[in-house]
Amino acid sequence: MSVPEQFEGFMIEDSKNWSDFKKQKFTPKKFESHDVDIENECCGVCGSDVHTITGGWGELATSPICVGHEVIGKVIRVGDAVKEFKAGDRVGVGAQVQSCMQCKMCKSDNENYCPNMVEVDTYMAPYKEDEGHSDKPMKDSSGNQIFSQGGYSSHIRAHEQFVFKIPDNISSTDAGPMIPLVRAGCGPGKKVAILGIGGLGHFALLWAKALGAEVYALSHTPSKEPEAKKLGADHFVCTKNEKWSEGLEFTFDFILNCADMTNEFDIATYLGTLNINGEFHNVGLPDKPLPQFQAQVFTTNGSKMGGSHIGSKKEAIAMLKLASEKNIKPMIETIDISEEGCKKAVEKVKVNDVRYRVTLTGFHKAFGTGKN
Amino acid sequence: MSVPEQFEGFMIEDSKNWSDFKKQKFTPKKFESHDVDIENECCGVCGSDVHTITGGWGELATSPICVGHEVIGKVIRVGDAVKEFKAGDRVGVGAQVQSCMQCKMCKSDNENYCPNMVEVDTYMAPYKEDEGHSDKPMKDSSGNQIFSQGGYSSHIRAHEQFVFKIPDNISSTDAGPMIPLVRAGCGPGKKVAILGIGGLGHFALLWAKALGAEVYALSHTPSKEPEAKKLGADHFVCTKNEKWSEGLEFTFDFILNCADMTNEFDIATYLGTLNINGEFHNVGLPDKPLPQFQAQVFTTNGSKMGGSHIGSKKEAIAMLKLASEKNIKPMIETIDISEEGCKKAVEKVKVNDVRYRVTLTGFHKAFGTGKN
Repeated sequence: MSVPEQFEGFMIEDSKNWSDFKKQKFTPKKFESHDVDIENECCGVCGSDVHTITGGWGELATSPICVGHEVIGKVIRVGDAVKEFKAGDRVGVGAQVQSCMQCKMCKSDNENYCPNMVEVDTYMAPYKEDEGHSDKPMKDSSGNQIFSQGGYSSHIRAHEQFVFKIPDNISSTDAGPMIPLVRAGCGPGKKVAILGIGGLGHFALLWAKALGAEVYALSHTPSKEPEAKKLGADHFVCTKNEKWSEGLEFTFDFILNCADMTNEFDIATYLGTLNINGEFHNVGLPDKPLPQFQAQVFTTNGSKMGGSHIGSKKEAIAMLKLASEKNIKPMIETIDISEEGCKKAVEKVKVNDVRYRVTLTGFHKAFGTGKN
Repeated sequence: MSVPEQFEGFMIEDSKNWSDFKKQKFTPKKFESHDVDIENECCGVCGSDVHTITGGWGELATSPICVGHEVIGKVIRVGDAVKEFKAGDRVGVGAQVQSCMQCKMCKSDNENYCPNMVEVDTYMAPYKEDEGHSDKPMKDSSGNQIFSQGGYSSHIRAHEQFVFKIPDNISSTDAGPMIPLVRAGCGPGKKVAILGIGGLGHFALLWAKALGAEVYALSHTPSKEPEAKKLGADHFVCTKNEKWSEGLEFTFDFILNCADMTNEFDIATYLGTLNINGEFHNVGLPDKPLPQFQAQVFTTNGSKMGGSHIGSKKEAIAMLKLASEKNIKPMIETIDISEEGCKKAVEKVKVNDVRYRVTLTGFHKAFGTGKN
């Protein structure tokens, strides 16, 4: 199948004009032996995309930039060393596209925490030569360093470790946003609270329920109650009510914090709703630091606060298997990809006007692909 | 044996004069069916005592106050319901003296996290009638509410759940400071860092080693290296060195933070030395809030920050058994109890001039006890 020299994407020039997408060509990393080339079919829109293009998580490391790390597409070429995939496979790519695959993390199914410089996020990470093992920056023919570019694009090139087969009974538009879900740590007999019922939170409700937990949805938007219950919540708690935590002390074994405004939360109140040695686990990551709190807040119940970075391949595969077996169906909105479509999608995410995830579609038409 | 109506202690009037101890009488709680009366023999001096009398953890809730929650003494009377102890037993009391013993926490060996109002710290907690089950404050004959008072005193009265038999081969002066040690979570094959080599930290080194972990002592005082190694540290890391964390990324399964100046720490650097899903666990509790940090710091390694509140009776007994079996010997300094002795002890603790724990001794002479 034919793979173009350059890929094409809807890209942002600077974070002041964070929703002014321009369709542009870009040079992907050099094709190496563990790489998988994918012709993109659709891509979920994550809050991370918005935090990145608005500069909330820091200055843009390169420009122009193409975001998107919930990519679904079809394999069109594989490197010499790739055994797991072949042209024609329907696959997904999440928030990471490379790691060293040699360190103790990579060898213990923790490649998502690879400490070496070669851990590469799906967008805005600088590539190095020799599948990341060299110290030499990977450069294009004009001498510019090559950065990873995301899935609002025609194609994506990723190390096979970060490519996942999609079970047949999950549609591509549904599969898109599932990829980045995290190590959840919840299961039967556990009381699990999902805090923030947005894109991540609505998936978390589905998963927590599928895993057999007693599920609480915590949201400051009372109108989300019926949908939260449809998604799997056994209980709905409106955190807009000042006394929301009363009667919930020592209740949750695990709070999965999917909200990204934690900087405005009263941490002590949330930690106070945890059962003995329970955990408040952050996957929503605010632009601003967490509010200050006293170490003493942990002593009421021996609680913890933590966070995590996507999942390993092993975990992602288990998650997709569960989604397939339990026939998990997210609630998504689709928008066809274009300069206007991307603008509309990220602006909706920015103001939380999405129920509950946007998947960008229509890639073949926009990029003239799909003929392979 | 004779139990006096009033107990006697070295007490503080106000936190401005936090080292001006006055020997005074105080009224203990009413003697109830689960209570154990103890004639004190010695008492460890904990940083908590100093945080309390200086007002660092908040205003004094009552005055005068007698601190001390590492008490060793001899049982001189037990309530009708007490089966575990009899007069003459050598026992210890830690940082808690009462809980409801009826809730799910108390019934699952988590009485140290009892959520009911009847969880009573060893000093400065208001007592209620009916072993804490009534809403009515317990008052003395003058109508003043009775508060718990600590172990810089002639006697202590505690609910049997919070009284521990001391194994014969542990001397009373050594046993004193062991009582409040925490749920550690370390064991063989684990790399455990003990941060802050003071009173708590030196115990933690002994315990971590006894539990079979590979032990790292982290201290900003380089001169503590030889003693830290004698206590059980396999490695010593001087955190005064700006680059102390270099080469230690992803190392520790558990950091037990025994320091109480965490408000001045660079949290991200410490969390960065944790292995995947490792925990930074606070038992040293600063007066001030923790420094602000981004939720993102947890995502490098999926780490956690937590804390705990003493141990349950079950854990304390296991700990004392281990100390007895492994013949664990702390490094302590003894000071005879008196107004001057108490002053000297808390002032030494305040400026970290203790290697590594002060035990107040000579109680029988100071209070005219010991004739039972």
